Amino acid sequence: MSELLDKFKAYLAETTNLGHASTLLYWDLETSMPKEGFKGHSDALAYLSTESFKRSTSTEMGEFLDKLSAPAEFDALDSDWKYIVKQMKKNYDENKRVPADFYHDFIVAQNEAGVAWQDAKAKKDFSIFAPHLEKMIDFTKKMMGYMRPHMEVYDALLDSYEEGMDSATYDRVFNELKEGLLPLLNKILAAKPYDESKFKKEYDIPAQKAVEKFLLEYIGFSFDKGCTGETEHPFTLNFNSKDVRVSNHFRTDNAVDPMFSAIHEGGHAIFEQNVAERLDDTVAGSCNYLGLHESQSRFYENVLGRNINFWKPIYAKLQEIDPDFKDITIDEFYRYINSVKNSLIRTQADEVTYCLHVIVRYEIEQEIFRNNVPVSELPALWNKKMEEYLHITPPTDAEGILQDMHWSDGSFGYFPTYLLGTIYDGMFLEAVEKDLGSIDTVLAEGRIKDITKWLNEHIHQYGSSRKPKEVIQAVCGREVSAQPILKYFTEKYTKIYNL
Amino acid sequence: MSELLDKFKAYLAETTNLGHASTLLYWDLETSMPKEGFKGHSDALAYLSTESFKRSTSTEMGEFLDKLSAPAEFDALDSDWKYIVKQMKKNYDENKRVPADFYHDFIVAQNEAGVAWQDAKAKKDFSIFAPHLEKMIDFTKKMMGYMRPHMEVYDALLDSYEEGMDSATYDRVFNELKEGLLPLLNKILAAKPYDESKFKKEYDIPAQKAVEKFLLEYIGFSFDKGCTGETEHPFTLNFNSKDVRVSNHFRTDNAVDPMFSAIHEGGHAIFEQNVAERLDDTVAGSCNYLGLHESQSRFYENVLGRNINFWKPIYAKLQEIDPDFKDITIDEFYRYINSVKNSLIRTQADEVTYCLHVIVRYEIEQEIFRNNVPVSELPALWNKKMEEYLHITPPTDAEGILQDMHWSDGSFGYFPTYLLGTIYDGMFLEAVEKDLGSIDTVLAEGRIKDITKWLNEHIHQYGSSRKPKEVIQAVCGREVSAQPILKYFTEKYTKIYNL
Repeated sequence: MSELLDKFKAYLAETTNLGHASTLLYWDLETSMPKEGFKGHSDALAYLSTESFKRSTSTEMGEFLDKLSAPAEFDALDSDWKYIVKQMKKNYDENKRVPADFYHDFIVAQNEAGVAWQDAKAKKDFSIFAPHLEKMIDFTKKMMGYMRPHMEVYDALLDSYEEGMDSATYDRVFNELKEGLLPLLNKILAAKPYDESKFKKEYDIPAQKAVEKFLLEYIGFSFDKGCTGETEHPFTLNFNSKDVRVSNHFRTDNAVDPMFSAIHEGGHAIFEQNVAERLDDTVAGSCNYLGLHESQSRFYENVLGRNINFWKPIYAKLQEIDPDFKDITIDEFYRYINSVKNSLIRTQADEVTYCLHVIVRYEIEQEIFRNNVPVSELPALWNKKMEEYLHITPPTDAEGILQDMHWSDGSFGYFPTYLLGTIYDGMFLEAVEKDLGSIDTVLAEGRIKDITKWLNEHIHQYGSSRKPKEVIQAVCGREVSAQPILKYFTEKYTKIYNL
Repeated sequence: MSELLDKFKAYLAETTNLGHASTLLYWDLETSMPKEGFKGHSDALAYLSTESFKRSTSTEMGEFLDKLSAPAEFDALDSDWKYIVKQMKKNYDENKRVPADFYHDFIVAQNEAGVAWQDAKAKKDFSIFAPHLEKMIDFTKKMMGYMRPHMEVYDALLDSYEEGMDSATYDRVFNELKEGLLPLLNKILAAKPYDESKFKKEYDIPAQKAVEKFLLEYIGFSFDKGCTGETEHPFTLNFNSKDVRVSNHFRTDNAVDPMFSAIHEGGHAIFEQNVAERLDDTVAGSCNYLGLHESQSRFYENVLGRNINFWKPIYAKLQEIDPDFKDITIDEFYRYINSVKNSLIRTQADEVTYCLHVIVRYEIEQEIFRNNVPVSELPALWNKKMEEYLHITPPTDAEGILQDMHWSDGSFGYFPTYLLGTIYDGMFLEAVEKDLGSIDTVLAEGRIKDITKWLNEHIHQYGSSRKPKEVIQAVCGREVSAQPILKYFTEKYTKIYNL
């Protein structure tokens, strides 16, 4: 190993330590911190994040990257470090092009938009949020102009969340999915809805926590390399492959959602826990592709977790751990967890309608960035699309265009990754079954860890060092397509709803 | 406020942020971190602690302190900042006198001694630990020689844990206590011991956690300014007055110890939560005097918590929260929590014999530092003193001289503070009763928060800005004496054991 690379690694290790502490401050702030502790935590977080940002954009960092990118040094790197240096150089150059003043104004605008969004949602009044949304659109365009001046804005945004996945691919697969899904959904909605009244009761919370632990272990989450916490909204957070944490939210009126949150976050966490150790604390050591990440959480949650065979080997155990399920049969449970309804809120949607919630957002983002549709027209556009795809109109904008926070912080291009993950899942399912046989059988035999092992080997171990298109090509041997997930939806729901 | 002071405060705030993150890393390491996350946490902790130490011993810091100590600047400071600057200058000068090489060797020796101590304890073999103990004694002498060359070594050690409390005072009050306590203990041990068999059962853990929460709130711990965690050994940790955390250890075979751990750590925490906010994040913002700190935890745990009137207003509630206590009467509970036994292990001792466990250690420390008794003779000395005071001889050194870790990291002079806190408690009890009347009445009427408020006002708010001797003088109007706590022990146990 070259002396230069050694020095670079030492420099990165110090930056990692600052980031490590910031990550922990964030985790603790969400899971444990007492109310009045906020200032101490946020001061420390601001200080450490700033120090960490300074180091990652420092002249010293630039010099390291320049030197390591020179052919003599670069050619001597192994393939991991080639990826790491190239990726860091790209990020460094992009960040360096953003004027400090502009960056500061962007953060201020983001914070103000966040406050306005909360206020607008509470008051069900889009006009409060509208000027801030305009500003965030404008700032986002400028930000992409600085960072990626050679790219069309929306392409640049899509690429920033799912590198290398261009908008032509997005358009193709989303349209493919929409065309196949709309007729299926119409048939489902015309069928008899499932009566959920048996599930309305008061559930014990310690039992739910025990179920969470059981399910996480069952699917392959390692408690030697992770732990759980409680937060308002479930999420996954990783320090490195050795410390990956998932949170959950427990309620007395619903014990099923937390199970699927656990399996969903467990899927994210299993990805991170199984990135090759040698990539720890580098830009390749965590999966930075949101679509690919979501494909793993949704694979566990939906493709595996909403399959009746997932529950067959463990349903009696579930009833033992949580006696609130003693009077619910596995068939009732299965029907409940696959109940399809045209509802208003994305985060509460079933796996079928969820796709259309995302498509609504994707199409609106295109209208914003490609057709310059004014902000004032967006609520009506939202409602029109909801009516068209889901045959339902939000009574107010709070249940419509104001429901998600993503646009308030300028995360345009983020939503589509949620659906891309689902589309990947159809393809991964085919690939898994090609190697392991029918997942119905694998699951029914309680061999879910065989699937986890397969995903570890084919996807997880690479972290970010393989880009999504490369992963799809390597794992599925072809271009991304929505046909496999459409086939999955059609077969599954035709059976469930006797279509 | 002077420009210089402003700059100094800004410098301190940055150091505080580093310390804040280190504190959180330590808390998380003990409460949540998964096993394999250790390296990431300890790397970050080492880095941040080093950065923080560098700043606190930096040339810049020295210049700030020199300038602020010059009469023109110093005289303009308010009394808080006079204390802060003076104390920091003292610490800075002491630390600066320690050669960096020596400090490094000390840390290495400390770590090695810690490993050897664990090994020796597990193997019940003092000879494994003996050479390391010798080394730690030698290093400690040298360390004090650098830091406090003008003081006798053991005096310097005592002073470092309880500033201003000299060994003449220690000797006087410890002898006073020993002379009064030995005859009382002999009478107790001759009386009929309490039959504890009714308490041997399997206790529910979620119920114990609910009891912990109830007790902490009852005594005045604020959950807006604190939270709880689980660790192997209970402790209290504070970031600042707004975020003070207590941990506990729950077991199925004993639900009473965790109650008293909660009350004990709650006492420490109530102290820290009530230091005046203006002192936050300064050297005065937390109580650095271990005896004074322990006086508060033991006041809650023993003087209040082991008084039957503490339980009278809440015992029915306790039985409701934890039904495992339904068949135990309050009188049985009271007898159990005040059962005196001559046992081997300090941390499991009752409040009476605990004093003698500490005196054994204090007297041995004096032999080490004042009479240069060789390490090889210490186990026999330990056993002789245990026999003399407690009429019991450890079967092996694991239950004798090897039981505590304190000497392995060179914390000589720490043990005596545990007992000093108890001695202060007798005096504080008198002072509380002078103002509020009999604590039996105050407790029986469920007005424990009046006592907490009294302690907040008279002791807690000052943090470290009043030294222990000043606190005792201000609160009790006289020198520290063991007579009040002796009176408390004698009256209480004469009644309980019908002596």
